[in-house]
Amino acid sequence: MILAKVVGHVVATQKCQELSGSNLLMVTKLGDDLEPLKNKTYVAVDSVGAGINDIVLAEAYFALNKDNYKAMSVVAIVEKVYTKE
Amino acid sequence: MILAKVVGHVVATQKCQELSGSNLLMVTKLGDDLEPLKNKTYVAVDSVGAGINDIVLAEAYFALNKDNYKAMSVVAIVEKVYTKE
Amino acid sequence: MILAKVVGHVVATQKCQELSGSNLLMVTKLGDDLEPLKNKTYVAVDSVGAGINDIVLAEAYFALNKDNYKAMSVVAIVEKVYTKE
Amino acid sequence: MILAKVVGHVVATQKCQELSGSNLLMVTKLGDDLEPLKNKTYVAVDSVGAGINDIVLAEAYFALNKDNYKAMSVVAIVEKVYTKE
Amino acid sequence: MILAKVVGHVVATQKCQELSGSNLLMVTKLGDDLEPLKNKTYVAVDSVGAGINDIVLAEAYFALNKDNYKAMSVVAIVEKVYTKE
Repeated sequence: MILAKVVGHVVATQKCQELSGSNLLMVTKLGDDLEPLKNKTYVAVDSVGAGINDIVLAEAYFALNKDNYKAMSVVAIVEKVYTKE
Repeated sequence: MILAKVVGHVVATQKCQELSGSNLLMVTKLGDDLEPLKNKTYVAVDSVGAGINDIVLAEAYFALNKDNYKAMSVVAIVEKVYTKE
Repeated sequence: MILAKVVGHVVATQKCQELSGSNLLMVTKLGDDLEPLKNKTYVAVDSVGAGINDIVLAEAYFALNKDNYKAMSVVAIVEKVYTKE
Repeated sequence: MILAKVVGHVVATQKCQELSGSNLLMVTKLGDDLEPLKNKTYVAVDSVGAGINDIVLAEAYFALNKDNYKAMSVVAIVEKVYTKE
Repeated sequence: MILAKVVGHVVATQKCQELSGSNLLMVTKLGDDLEPLKNKTYVAVDSVGAGINDIVLAEAYFALNKDNYKAMSVVAIVEKVYTKE
């Protein structure tokens, strides 16, 4: 999983069935300074009610359990990051 | 998933069975300025009827549900991208 | 999937059971100019009878359907690439 | 799998069900000199009781067996690395 | 799959159940000149009895068949690489 910031969202009417009803967030991977990196923005399905500017945990791939494959998702809203520095 | 632009297509008569009948689109990943990035072009199976120059959502991997594994696919046509800037 | 060129093959007698009988091709990812990129060579199982110098479609991961997981594979031989330029 | 160092942890109250009760560690991939690399920090679920500054083995993807898909995980604590130099 | 060289091994007593009894090899991805690349070293489970300095085929991901998911593995020992140059 990666730490990312919600920077926008995407509107798409014509989409495959698995995405219907999904909220499609644009999330940008954070660097070591916890600032968004250049050209590291992905589109992820929201599963926790995240909003613009939230720091989130995004699953870079797609599967968390065997009965529920899904596209790249936001899986948690991060409240605090603790590092040793 | 990634935002990408449809830049072409590929013709391949000799292909494995899972791809037979598929429309094979060339899609280029977009950068932060929503312009195509250099050397980031992939071939994706179309599942939404996308055409040349469309901005699309492409699943970078292959699985959206457990009964229907598939190759990298175009999964939505994007109408509008909203970012905070 | 990626566009790649077949640049060689690999001989390996001692291999795991899933690879026995497989033809192991060296394929190099192509850049935007359709020329091989530096240090982007992979080994893929041939499933379509590709030969040296062929332009092919390679599945970068491993699964095209749920009953037949497999290693990275060459899944099509490309006859023509159409781009908008 | 990758060699990584535990550099911190993440607190997230609002998270998807699969992550509830998980310890979320920040791990940074190590380079050839066994020092953390720049901008290569991921968030991984702890499954072995790792602590800050531990050198660990992290599964970069998510699945070690078919009945237990999971998010990126710390799968071992490394005691010693032997290289030929 | 990637061509890689076995450059060392890792000792880890505390590890998840799926790795118990596994031989954990450090393998470095080879470049176009068949020399190890910088900062491209991974840890892979040995499944073919590879030893130090062997050139091997490593599955970069984890699954070769549906009944036997596993971590990144060394899947073959390479005897000879044929390229067109």
